[in-house]
Amino acid sequence: MRSRAGRMRDIQPFRVMELLARARKLEAQGRDIVHMEIGEPDFPTPAPVIDAVFRAIASGDVHYTPATGLPVLREAIAGYYLRHDGVALDPARVVVTPGASGALLLVLGVVLDPGEAVLMADPGYPCNRNFVHFLDGRTRAIPVTADTGYQLTAQQVAQHWDETTAAVMVASPSNPTGTLIPTGELRQIRDFVARQGGTLIVDEIYHGLVYDGQAETALTLGDDLFVINSFSKYFGLTGWRVGWLVAPAAVVPDLDKLAQNLFLAAPTPSQHAALAALQPDTLVILDQRREAFRQRRDYLLPALRDIGFDIPMSPQGAFYLYANCERFTADSFQFATTLLEEIGVAVTPGLDFGNNQPEKHLRFAYTTSRERLEEGVQRLKAYL
Amino acid sequence: MRSRAGRMRDIQPFRVMELLARARKLEAQGRDIVHMEIGEPDFPTPAPVIDAVFRAIASGDVHYTPATGLPVLREAIAGYYLRHDGVALDPARVVVTPGASGALLLVLGVVLDPGEAVLMADPGYPCNRNFVHFLDGRTRAIPVTADTGYQLTAQQVAQHWDETTAAVMVASPSNPTGTLIPTGELRQIRDFVARQGGTLIVDEIYHGLVYDGQAETALTLGDDLFVINSFSKYFGLTGWRVGWLVAPAAVVPDLDKLAQNLFLAAPTPSQHAALAALQPDTLVILDQRREAFRQRRDYLLPALRDIGFDIPMSPQGAFYLYANCERFTADSFQFATTLLEEIGVAVTPGLDFGNNQPEKHLRFAYTTSRERLEEGVQRLKAYL
Repeated sequence: MRSRAGRMRDIQPFRVMELLARARKLEAQGRDIVHMEIGEPDFPTPAPVIDAVFRAIASGDVHYTPATGLPVLREAIAGYYLRHDGVALDPARVVVTPGASGALLLVLGVVLDPGEAVLMADPGYPCNRNFVHFLDGRTRAIPVTADTGYQLTAQQVAQHWDETTAAVMVASPSNPTGTLIPTGELRQIRDFVARQGGTLIVDEIYHGLVYDGQAETALTLGDDLFVINSFSKYFGLTGWRVGWLVAPAAVVPDLDKLAQNLFLAAPTPSQHAALAALQPDTLVILDQRREAFRQRRDYLLPALRDIGFDIPMSPQGAFYLYANCERFTADSFQFATTLLEEIGVAVTPGLDFGNNQPEKHLRFAYTTSRERLEEGVQRLKAYL
Repeated sequence: MRSRAGRMRDIQPFRVMELLARARKLEAQGRDIVHMEIGEPDFPTPAPVIDAVFRAIASGDVHYTPATGLPVLREAIAGYYLRHDGVALDPARVVVTPGASGALLLVLGVVLDPGEAVLMADPGYPCNRNFVHFLDGRTRAIPVTADTGYQLTAQQVAQHWDETTAAVMVASPSNPTGTLIPTGELRQIRDFVARQGGTLIVDEIYHGLVYDGQAETALTLGDDLFVINSFSKYFGLTGWRVGWLVAPAAVVPDLDKLAQNLFLAAPTPSQHAALAALQPDTLVILDQRREAFRQRRDYLLPALRDIGFDIPMSPQGAFYLYANCERFTADSFQFATTLLEEIGVAVTPGLDFGNNQPEKHLRFAYTTSRERLEEGVQRLKAYL
């Protein structure tokens, strides 16, 4: 008995999961591991969120919600865009989803036919490719470099677009590079895609974690694109699995129909957590955490460069540094394994992010405390 | 801006959602509505489950779990099969999912290629068809009648199977009919499907809610089939969105890979709720609720027959009665609308369950109290 669907040949597992499992095993044996591999903030669920969830559960508010989410949560998300981004948004365009993962599944479900292609940057978030493969589409991964801030340019999009292309996906800030796409460039991409009758999908999962200035949401560019966001990163609600999608108004009925069938709805307790995460008292806490992330970046970036890692772009957001490690190795996967085994430092090999020189790159996540980052840097410095 | 993917043409919305929205509107206007349309138990989350969730959240246990679920939950599910069904099951074959919906998506993801067909009974649960359409497969809905307990027979499966068929789905107890498939018949289906190199998928979402004797799980038939279950129905955790899947051992690595990409994992607080739902103190409460459902069935079934609805099969499980209403109407959708508007009784029209004489059928859910069921029956009796 084997999987028989062809799509499974194109879907890769996360290599970092093997490393994480090995790290947990070493920890169980008593080894001290510095975790710089995990894309999950180390902060606990904010107290006002916990209070609100307890109230909701105790009052029995745990039944199915509408497939597009609690109306009050959709309104609160729209209100957040107004206050945070100055964008007036009809709450009817907001669809609450089980994580940003659910949002990606819905968007690709309504825009992608089997055999059609989606353009995306390489390196990039691995799930994006795999969602496309799940729906039997093809990914056209475009190699990007530090010269363009690891982001697609309008010229590259035009160059790689053909009649089989359905959509282009952009992530800003990017995972694994933490870099933003300039709004002017994104506008050109939007205009080009609109002329082709294609779809622009913008991943703003790390939009709340930008340290240099404020990132502009792609929603300022028009109402004919999809924006995906998450309560997992800035809002810190990883295991709760809740995210959202802003969609062109005319597509919402189809997204609703898909959500009814694929999920029924996002988990109800998690929707109450998300609602509390958008309240002013929680946002004060989250902004303090963003400042802590900024301080970690400002420590780790020069520290890694100092050791000899090449990080040509200073990332403006997310909580990742994408480092060239070819000074130390020609095989970053083997190198990551060695660092874990020899000095107990866990990092993610480039292999998880695509085929654009993955063997020369590692991703460092600063999702652990300053003290632990310093410990990791000391171990690397002593070893290398 | 419109949806452009072809699959959206084949995916139907739930018609009952329109009715539910209309019912809510009438309630907001002060009308009293008897809800017999909703497939959601009316009982609150059991107290021991709430306690366990509060403890987990308060202790910070809200981070991502492994994609296949908390190991302790997979073990507890395997333990439940041993105690409840006498089936010894390797916990490694259990995959925890975001609702049974997530389980369906994973299973079809590994077994179905675009253009291939899945056999299923008509009437049947509407999402099953739509999951197949989501992956660009085709559904071959086989009309079933009370003569076979609204279940597929091995003969029908053999008759409708061809070289494009990938799988057959069976639900026992069935939604909307509440009927079981005889184990002997299911064994013949399993044997036939195995000879064809196809896949048997058994929906046991209502397995915990069987009132006449005990249903046998399909896991007794072999380890080469997929069984889907849910914490929403017997366990009553609807809005929490957690379910599970038992799979052939060799397929689990691919299911893990898909789950990593499509969900990351089921919501963590919900997994803790599920774990508590499997403990002896909760099961005592759940068994009392099952007895309450049985009493409701034993009241509603003769009461509806008495009014003039034709319910040829006495359903053994779930919380639905599938009633022929042709004595009253030639259009059950219009009839359901009229019942809601005229007497405030909400039921689900047959249209949601397929194309097999839907206009002659209604589904009554006994997910509300005995008193409310009596109120609904009184209104129907007075009106009809």
